[in-house]
Amino acid sequence: MRLATRDNGRPDGELLVVSEDGSRAAPVPRWPNVLAALTDWSAAERDLSEVANQVTLGFGTPVDQTRLRAPLPRTWQWLDGSAFQAHADLMQVAFGTEKIEHDKPLMYQGMSDRFYGPSDTVPFPDEAHGIDFEGEFGVVVDAVPMGTSATEAMSHIKLLVQINDWSLRTLAVPEMKTGFGWIQAKPACSMAPFAVTPGELGDGWREGRVCLDLVVEWNGRPFGRANGREMAHGFHELVAHAAATRDLVAGTVIGSGTVANADYAEVGSSCISERRAIEIIAEGKPTTHFMRFGDRCRMEALTADGRAIFGAIEQEVVAASKAT
Amino acid sequence: MRLATRDNGRPDGELLVVSEDGSRAAPVPRWPNVLAALTDWSAAERDLSEVANQVTLGFGTPVDQTRLRAPLPRTWQWLDGSAFQAHADLMQVAFGTEKIEHDKPLMYQGMSDRFYGPSDTVPFPDEAHGIDFEGEFGVVVDAVPMGTSATEAMSHIKLLVQINDWSLRTLAVPEMKTGFGWIQAKPACSMAPFAVTPGELGDGWREGRVCLDLVVEWNGRPFGRANGREMAHGFHELVAHAAATRDLVAGTVIGSGTVANADYAEVGSSCISERRAIEIIAEGKPTTHFMRFGDRCRMEALTADGRAIFGAIEQEVVAASKAT
Repeated sequence: MRLATRDNGRPDGELLVVSEDGSRAAPVPRWPNVLAALTDWSAAERDLSEVANQVTLGFGTPVDQTRLRAPLPRTWQWLDGSAFQAHADLMQVAFGTEKIEHDKPLMYQGMSDRFYGPSDTVPFPDEAHGIDFEGEFGVVVDAVPMGTSATEAMSHIKLLVQINDWSLRTLAVPEMKTGFGWIQAKPACSMAPFAVTPGELGDGWREGRVCLDLVVEWNGRPFGRANGREMAHGFHELVAHAAATRDLVAGTVIGSGTVANADYAEVGSSCISERRAIEIIAEGKPTTHFMRFGDRCRMEALTADGRAIFGAIEQEVVAASKAT
Repeated sequence: MRLATRDNGRPDGELLVVSEDGSRAAPVPRWPNVLAALTDWSAAERDLSEVANQVTLGFGTPVDQTRLRAPLPRTWQWLDGSAFQAHADLMQVAFGTEKIEHDKPLMYQGMSDRFYGPSDTVPFPDEAHGIDFEGEFGVVVDAVPMGTSATEAMSHIKLLVQINDWSLRTLAVPEMKTGFGWIQAKPACSMAPFAVTPGELGDGWREGRVCLDLVVEWNGRPFGRANGREMAHGFHELVAHAAATRDLVAGTVIGSGTVANADYAEVGSSCISERRAIEIIAEGKPTTHFMRFGDRCRMEALTADGRAIFGAIEQEVVAASKAT
């Protein structure tokens, strides 16, 4: 099942159940938005599945994925991990920081009151902040009680999403050094148009990992094609980590961190900082600039048979004063 | 004007306008909850003020402050600063960490999907996590556009609140060392029952600081009486810091960090970690234990004429499995 959110003038938008090919969709009046559905998922799932069957049979109206909002335009909690070792290793080089000694998953809490839609322009105040994209996968859970184990956590993963975790790199290092995590360096993220139930991925969802290639393009040029399978901790382990001392509210989104692979020389990267780190290793200094206003970034995850199952994020970066 | 929230079976509860002496209150049907009022504050303020006048004249029904919820039982964003230098200095001793070199305010994003009410029992999974209270003040803003200056930010501060930012100290140091901030070490906070407009504090609200004594008791014994005036950055500066690269959603709560004073030997502390640091300095090692299940903590801020303007937080810490 694939869900999307259409603008209806309300903060949470209107939930749509989307056809397998992403061309048609139908609302479900009893479940006005995705966040509401997640608060009572077992009831919602039955109703949404029924509409999904109808949409498969030709019910629904045409949908333009470039006009959709984020499947969750806002939610109560966004916890982002950093589960790819290749990313962690390269960021250490990029940031000039020391190796993080920690036997648990890395995770910070970020801004969740706004997720940009897949085609929204994204405003930033200053190019000098080192504007970078970060291609990620994420999971959305229903209510997870404090103390839930990783094994139990698996069944709380109701939806998978694809995220661009926008980052401001020159602000990131000093904030990280405080130990407090990131405020200025991590503004709102973007989401691809479709949130999908794990079953939709078939073999692409294994051991709590989204085992799909994340195809990243920067200004129309290929930038990376890393696969989500190399997470050091699966999403179920990230959920359990987050729930160790708190109940997780329904609608919590937990991110993988930037998708990266050990053979980055082959597959490329999902953020500019990694490419700069690779340049530092090879040439002693970075030569790739961060983004400029007017730059575009496109991200889509492909199934084995080449379907962009989450749809595409395709956005332009603009000066904050020019944002609409 | 003082606002509170009564349980009505809904996640955001029911907004109440409270009389000056805290004994009577009345709902305002057009503004069902505090979060809704903050999204359209200029309209809400007129209506709420009118009801406040009526309540002053004897309108409304008796209110029992121990049965109230947090004024904001949940909100979209909680950004907690650490603006008291005495606290930062002592925590460095308590944690055995290095001095933080940072020319901006310190701030992390914490859990905002639940704030405990002033009399709720507070569940934790394990005494060994080093259960600690942290007495703080906070401000609640309406929508603050990205790039708002500190001067402009002052007028966005609509409500003041009093917070206990519960902390798990043995989990805090390793999380801090990752640079990612705190997830496991910072579960849900508690709020005192009344959110008050800055004007209510009179001289107690100066230069963006809540200049009141925060009286903290642990198991009925006096623990601290630090004053909120010694913030290195005023709340307006914390708001501007947070809004540098993001729009702040209406209802964002921004915390001061643990209230602490340079003459801590005189006034005591607002968290156990500070007392332990003082013991380390004086005696080479800490002798005060963190909290045990069954322990109680009370916090109230007193005006010059001795009124507990935010009401009191008075809670018991319990084992998570026994929580109600």
